[in-house]
Amino acid sequence: MSEFVHQRHKQVTSLREPRELIIACPEMQSHINVSRMVRAAACCGVTRFIACGNVKIDSKISRGGEQQMSFEVRRSLRPVLQKLQRAGYPLIGLEQTTNSQNIHQFRFPAKCVLIIGHERKGIIDDVLEILDQTIEIPVWGEPFSYNAATAASMALYEYCRQFPN
Amino acid sequence: MSEFVHQRHKQVTSLREPRELIIACPEMQSHINVSRMVRAAACCGVTRFIACGNVKIDSKISRGGEQQMSFEVRRSLRPVLQKLQRAGYPLIGLEQTTNSQNIHQFRFPAKCVLIIGHERKGIIDDVLEILDQTIEIPVWGEPFSYNAATAASMALYEYCRQFPN
Repeated sequence: MSEFVHQRHKQVTSLREPRELIIACPEMQSHINVSRMVRAAACCGVTRFIACGNVKIDSKISRGGEQQMSFEVRRSLRPVLQKLQRAGYPLIGLEQTTNSQNIHQFRFPAKCVLIIGHERKGIIDDVLEILDQTIEIPVWGEPFSYNAATAASMALYEYCRQFPN
Repeated sequence: MSEFVHQRHKQVTSLREPRELIIACPEMQSHINVSRMVRAAACCGVTRFIACGNVKIDSKISRGGEQQMSFEVRRSLRPVLQKLQRAGYPLIGLEQTTNSQNIHQFRFPAKCVLIIGHERKGIIDDVLEILDQTIEIPVWGEPFSYNAATAASMALYEYCRQFPN
């Protein structure tokens, strides 16, 4: 008899307050990446997701996560980010820049927007220039860059690790 | 002029010793998931990846990560895991079980095998029963379960956070 018995979907961790984390991404190259991010974000209890441009969510990949949150589609990212910034949400970009901080040392504000970059272009300049902070995930080997949705999942994980309840 | 200027593929974090983390997965439903895990593992500096059964790596997704490590394909997982266990590698399963520990409180042994479960079946019983530990990633909302490759990426992230150098 095994010491470990499957227990799928056991208990969900409950949050005292709804998460004040917002996920935002530009128009992405891959609908699959957006759909994957939506699933991960929904599992993490994120309540607002801002996507841009021509987005098609594949609900087989997102597992309906977009139904669990406010899922908004904008023409572009900068105006909505500026509005959120004025409303007190620091803008945190997940991007390797000259001033980016290692996510291992970064303390997320509970209330913030996490901005994901485009698969090839990353976070474009008109968004970069309004950010409050950029953070990066260390890389130890080739191919030297994480897939955008993988990096988003890792950053979501870190945020939730810092705010488990 | 923006405070944050793109710097793609800046510096790679170097490791004093090669990672002693091995990733192992059963025959998966999706080649894409295996390919994604290979890319993430390679970026994390993992040097050995054990897959099973009929595996096709899509190198556009893996970005050639399988070339950066020892990538092995086995018929099944249990024999190789038992061998590794005898060689001093604790077997850590990423699976919700009756005894699984929250990954947030778990200290990874530097030397270990991280076992990923099948997308639908999870880690099957003949593997579960030889594991030394199972760990789980908290879930806060519907759809209540992470994609297998997403969960693997989060666990990889946590391992690397604990062993950054």
